[in-house]
Amino acid sequence: MYQVDLNCDLGESFGNYKLGMDDQVIPLISSANIACGYHASDPLVMAKTVAMAKEAGIGLGAHPGFPDLMGFGRRNMDVTPGEAKAYTTYQIGALDAFCKSQGTKLQHVKPHGAMYNMAGKDYKLAEAICQAIYDFDKELIVMALAGGELVHAAKDMGLKVANEVFADRAYEEDGSLVNRRKEGAMIVDEGEAIARVVRMVKEGKVTAITGKDIPIQVDSICVHGDGVKALAFVERIREKFALEGIRIAPLSEIVK
Amino acid sequence: MYQVDLNCDLGESFGNYKLGMDDQVIPLISSANIACGYHASDPLVMAKTVAMAKEAGIGLGAHPGFPDLMGFGRRNMDVTPGEAKAYTTYQIGALDAFCKSQGTKLQHVKPHGAMYNMAGKDYKLAEAICQAIYDFDKELIVMALAGGELVHAAKDMGLKVANEVFADRAYEEDGSLVNRRKEGAMIVDEGEAIARVVRMVKEGKVTAITGKDIPIQVDSICVHGDGVKALAFVERIREKFALEGIRIAPLSEIVK
Amino acid sequence: MYQVDLNCDLGESFGNYKLGMDDQVIPLISSANIACGYHASDPLVMAKTVAMAKEAGIGLGAHPGFPDLMGFGRRNMDVTPGEAKAYTTYQIGALDAFCKSQGTKLQHVKPHGAMYNMAGKDYKLAEAICQAIYDFDKELIVMALAGGELVHAAKDMGLKVANEVFADRAYEEDGSLVNRRKEGAMIVDEGEAIARVVRMVKEGKVTAITGKDIPIQVDSICVHGDGVKALAFVERIREKFALEGIRIAPLSEIVK
Amino acid sequence: MYQVDLNCDLGESFGNYKLGMDDQVIPLISSANIACGYHASDPLVMAKTVAMAKEAGIGLGAHPGFPDLMGFGRRNMDVTPGEAKAYTTYQIGALDAFCKSQGTKLQHVKPHGAMYNMAGKDYKLAEAICQAIYDFDKELIVMALAGGELVHAAKDMGLKVANEVFADRAYEEDGSLVNRRKEGAMIVDEGEAIARVVRMVKEGKVTAITGKDIPIQVDSICVHGDGVKALAFVERIREKFALEGIRIAPLSEIVK
Repeated sequence: MYQVDLNCDLGESFGNYKLGMDDQVIPLISSANIACGYHASDPLVMAKTVAMAKEAGIGLGAHPGFPDLMGFGRRNMDVTPGEAKAYTTYQIGALDAFCKSQGTKLQHVKPHGAMYNMAGKDYKLAEAICQAIYDFDKELIVMALAGGELVHAAKDMGLKVANEVFADRAYEEDGSLVNRRKEGAMIVDEGEAIARVVRMVKEGKVTAITGKDIPIQVDSICVHGDGVKALAFVERIREKFALEGIRIAPLSEIVK
Repeated sequence: MYQVDLNCDLGESFGNYKLGMDDQVIPLISSANIACGYHASDPLVMAKTVAMAKEAGIGLGAHPGFPDLMGFGRRNMDVTPGEAKAYTTYQIGALDAFCKSQGTKLQHVKPHGAMYNMAGKDYKLAEAICQAIYDFDKELIVMALAGGELVHAAKDMGLKVANEVFADRAYEEDGSLVNRRKEGAMIVDEGEAIARVVRMVKEGKVTAITGKDIPIQVDSICVHGDGVKALAFVERIREKFALEGIRIAPLSEIVK
Repeated sequence: MYQVDLNCDLGESFGNYKLGMDDQVIPLISSANIACGYHASDPLVMAKTVAMAKEAGIGLGAHPGFPDLMGFGRRNMDVTPGEAKAYTTYQIGALDAFCKSQGTKLQHVKPHGAMYNMAGKDYKLAEAICQAIYDFDKELIVMALAGGELVHAAKDMGLKVANEVFADRAYEEDGSLVNRRKEGAMIVDEGEAIARVVRMVKEGKVTAITGKDIPIQVDSICVHGDGVKALAFVERIREKFALEGIRIAPLSEIVK
Repeated sequence: MYQVDLNCDLGESFGNYKLGMDDQVIPLISSANIACGYHASDPLVMAKTVAMAKEAGIGLGAHPGFPDLMGFGRRNMDVTPGEAKAYTTYQIGALDAFCKSQGTKLQHVKPHGAMYNMAGKDYKLAEAICQAIYDFDKELIVMALAGGELVHAAKDMGLKVANEVFADRAYEEDGSLVNRRKEGAMIVDEGEAIARVVRMVKEGKVTAITGKDIPIQVDSICVHGDGVKALAFVERIREKFALEGIRIAPLSEIVK
């Protein structure tokens, strides 16, 4: 039987600012990537988000990012591997404290935004992030762009890895995401996006932007919870998966 | 035999900014209060400070403060108990991650600056901070102003408490610190300051600013490491303690 | 003929976070209080908000706050008068740069949140804020709680002052706002709120929470633009004002 | 007669953190680049630094940087031109407010750290920064790496430009600075450094790291004030200049 994890970024509100429809997307997903206060979130939001995710029984993940609240962690920053490692330790620890205090445990770590993208291409940066994870708790699963450098670094270190794919993004032949600034980078047709994901899960293949089929491993699919349209799309994915015999499963059952 | 802990705030550098003579004060103290990134410090500094304190074998403490880097956490902020609790959890967790990653453990928690002062007088705030500590790890020692509300809240919750005194500060009859703006608030004569501390440790008494002797419990003495003069003062305290038969001991041996 | 200014806090979005329905409230008001990056906003938001307000021809005001983004500047902070002065200069200058760059001018300054409330009660703090305004540009109008200490300090310094009232808040007999935590602090009935404002404008009187009528001077009324309901309320005020012969006028025509 | 400006970064302290020996370097220089609160400084420091520089009669410059206090603005950030423009407007305005409030004027603008380096190589970024300066005050002088893209963008926009050189850095044949990670990037011999600067000023030439002489225009020389050794080096430069007949002059007399 086919099975896959659905993950979503959660807990991105900050102070007086609300972001995302966390309460509505939580019932639809199996893993949450929870912001840790650097690119988004604050301690009150973290406490609440951990409580909601725990209550729903989904997997809890730390979502560390760059110290760039103004840019939401989406801007590349020329940090050293040492800085990336320390930022990761700090943020995992902060989030883990809310888990521990509420009697639950972290399942995974997924870097956010620019840190995620840069670690997907830069082995040294990826290695530094993995070292932070390994030193903190070697049982944590690393969630990373399928086939990217973060996957390689995590495997080399003996960490468990979840290969992540994006339903709404086109792929280059080498398995990397097509740059958002290039035409065709986004899969705008929802039916096509869902069909692509089903094929990725069942056949382990996706058609690259060049037209060529490439292999791809899928442990988790990234979905969004930041609007009514995003939520409807997740529901369509779930319906299609039910028809296709694809089970949505906790990451811990998928990644061994 | 008499014994007491000597504690000092450490790891207060930030980015390009250096503060404190950590490497020189560490050999002179038995417990370190390590800043956690809100009022001072950053992840690189935290990693380094934990490593230095661990290497020296002194007790490691989290030193959470208000989110006020510009004011160094020294300005009273009208936070809710819920905010204080969440800020404490966040910062303890962040620092603990560096301890855990380096194979060592936290010994105590001491709120910093305005958070320390406010918690010494406001039971609800003190209780919120203690709840954060209790929920995270009920074996942690709470370091607090001798006789203040934070001591009471910690005891009421069943947490271990270290009563802290200040060598260079005058006391009111009720055991609170004399406001810095009042004349006579600081004990400027070093010899007098040391004599007072010795008496506090041996007799459990101190002369209040009114001239009346009051009882005071001493588990730890706060010293400073931010200058050559401060370091010399710590050395004088240590010499006097040796003569007086007062042993400087880890907090964990003093507070049971 | 009666005339009054309607003011609203604008430009409170930050980075990826959107707040307020600025484009919809702008046509309904005559003065904008624009956040300056300490409690809310960022440079891109400031540039855009100044452009929108200039385009609409409404009065532009700087809305400086405490450096507390996490608390949205709503938490009292124990800053010194010197700090308050410097924070005000910094933020006025930053916002004024966007005005100057776009060929327009600042009309007024209104402190935000906790800075506003504290300055309404603390003459020394109010004086420091006024000194910053005076030193920067003595033609700027200070917008302040009607009858509060900020009004007094501004007048004592020779600055122009706009007395501000709140439609949805109850008043104590001394003209101060009833603390939000007290019952009856908010005027929840919209009809009553509007009737109160009309009376304040026409008769210069309002019924305090004790039942006693007190005098009140009104140059500007604070309205909100952060939701559909808030916008509808502003429209009801405008309709009533039209019927009552109250003209909504730019602050510069009201305060001489 | 030969003349040149000596500039130094000033006002880089922040809150409780002290950085630089501003009071000692001010008498030795003719222009100050004053931090504006993004990569360093705070409003109290800015007020004080403007007062000191005004008192000494040296030229005042804004030194805007990236919003990266933790990295001191030294890390490349992938900001858009629009962001760079808005950040520049914000920071120039904030600093200018302290100048205006103290009855003095800004002379120049020099981007800091990573913003300086990136703008030296990226015309679009340079252009955005220049647009911010132009829109705010087209009389301001842009201080930029001699021969870099920021110089070109400023000239293309009709702004006045000061070409800046570094005494302690090696140059590539194209006039760019040798990357600090390359061997030979720093000119460690002080005598050699000074001889190079004298030749740059008198002959308009410098020997690149390849050994080839290249032309270089010098309006201002960057010196440092962050230590006793740095200060001694500035004094040696001044002594040599006196012997060589090179006058240290305000930027406003050099750049027309």
